Amino acid sequence: MVEEGGPLIIIGGREDKDGEKLILREVAERVKGGKLVVATVASHQPEGYFDAYRKAFGELGLDRLVELYVHERGETLGADAAALFEDASGIFFTGGDQLRISSQIGDTPVEKMVRRVHLEGGVVAGTSAGASVMSETMLVKGSSQESHRIGDLHMAPGLGLIRDVIIDQHFAERGRIGRLMGAVAQNPRVLGIGIDEDTAIIVEGHRFRVLGSGAVYIVDGSRVTHSNIAEASPERTLSMHDVRLHVLSQDDAFDLNRRCPVAARPD
Amino acid sequence: MVEEGGPLIIIGGREDKDGEKLILREVAERVKGGKLVVATVASHQPEGYFDAYRKAFGELGLDRLVELYVHERGETLGADAAALFEDASGIFFTGGDQLRISSQIGDTPVEKMVRRVHLEGGVVAGTSAGASVMSETMLVKGSSQESHRIGDLHMAPGLGLIRDVIIDQHFAERGRIGRLMGAVAQNPRVLGIGIDEDTAIIVEGHRFRVLGSGAVYIVDGSRVTHSNIAEASPERTLSMHDVRLHVLSQDDAFDLNRRCPVAARPD
Repeated sequence: MVEEGGPLIIIGGREDKDGEKLILREVAERVKGGKLVVATVASHQPEGYFDAYRKAFGELGLDRLVELYVHERGETLGADAAALFEDASGIFFTGGDQLRISSQIGDTPVEKMVRRVHLEGGVVAGTSAGASVMSETMLVKGSSQESHRIGDLHMAPGLGLIRDVIIDQHFAERGRIGRLMGAVAQNPRVLGIGIDEDTAIIVEGHRFRVLGSGAVYIVDGSRVTHSNIAEASPERTLSMHDVRLHVLSQDDAFDLNRRCPVAARPD
Repeated sequence: MVEEGGPLIIIGGREDKDGEKLILREVAERVKGGKLVVATVASHQPEGYFDAYRKAFGELGLDRLVELYVHERGETLGADAAALFEDASGIFFTGGDQLRISSQIGDTPVEKMVRRVHLEGGVVAGTSAGASVMSETMLVKGSSQESHRIGDLHMAPGLGLIRDVIIDQHFAERGRIGRLMGAVAQNPRVLGIGIDEDTAIIVEGHRFRVLGSGAVYIVDGSRVTHSNIAEASPERTLSMHDVRLHVLSQDDAFDLNRRCPVAARPD
């Protein structure tokens, strides 16, 4: 959960940038005409990312955008990168490779500024890799579109803006239920949250609500009675009994403390 | 469940035909050198199907194979097609389109012979479409690799060799958890069983066990506290709270009466 600070908007990738822009509109409304830092650092080839967001946010009336890109970790150690965050009302992490975000900005003045903006009530949004990196431990690699082999999962320390959860994205589109269950099996203390494309969760305090066209899957392992995750052979297919699963869609809400969904009000 | 009759071997498609042939070997062992009817009726273009199985089963020492194919439903109404089943120890339904099986042989002498072989203790196996058609109500069409829209599901009456369940196949490979949950949401009386490729369940009485390289997903909706499946808009994404989910892998077993998994014995 997020104990203090501003809202997190965690997006499963490929959010609508041309139509109604439901999710980006939510980000823009939270930034309230202030300055938004668009961190394209997840990408190995960032060309085009910033322009696409400048256009989309511009159409939503948000013009104060600055780009944070980092070619080498060394650049984040000086004052220039951190200075970009002065006066920022929000930060938006774009997609790419979540390990590139954590390895380039982890434990640097840039990361400190991200936390400061957040603690002072600013919105921190992230899509795709930018969603994964929000959690304490993040999924880096694992099987998609096949059932989970117990040895086939790679995790790494994330930014930890939200705790006790693990986030996966492009969820239904890439058939990732198996790998998220594998991650939860490793330690059911973490709640698995799988977010579809063009879908977001907006986390405020210990609650979030769902926004967008797809679904959000919650994998709760607290009542699991059996799993073979600690078995010797990495080739073994995951076995896991008594998982509690919720599928949430737009306007559904979820209480992270009680691990309990709250249904959408009927239209 | 299967109240009486021989075992059902229900396969998620693409079972190994060249290597160890774990699943086909199980079928061959159950047929015990007797006659196996290979029903290629699910396919619109059956050429090659029978040859592939003749080769694979031949390598397993099973040579008494006959093919059942039906170009038109009228062919199944005469005595010739039914005569193929005389003396059969087993039936194997190959892949294709499950609606082609049910529409061509449903309520014909061929279907009666399938039931007779089964009731007399013969094995009935089916892969892919041949797996789906085993249940009372079968999934025909629904979204893969996206979350389930409540209007986007087509079901049809199947052969009903196993009751109170709905079977889906190519499960992890085609990202079908969403559509199976949608089917279960429609009536949680049915238990959802999603079977991966090269994976099978062997049903005997009210129990089954898992065989093969992938996983089997059990979607139990009996404790669901909320779903929006009966809402007006077919475009709405499925929302479903408190699903009980089990992932089973090789040697895991499941009790269909108690809706309860039984873990594999440790190696």
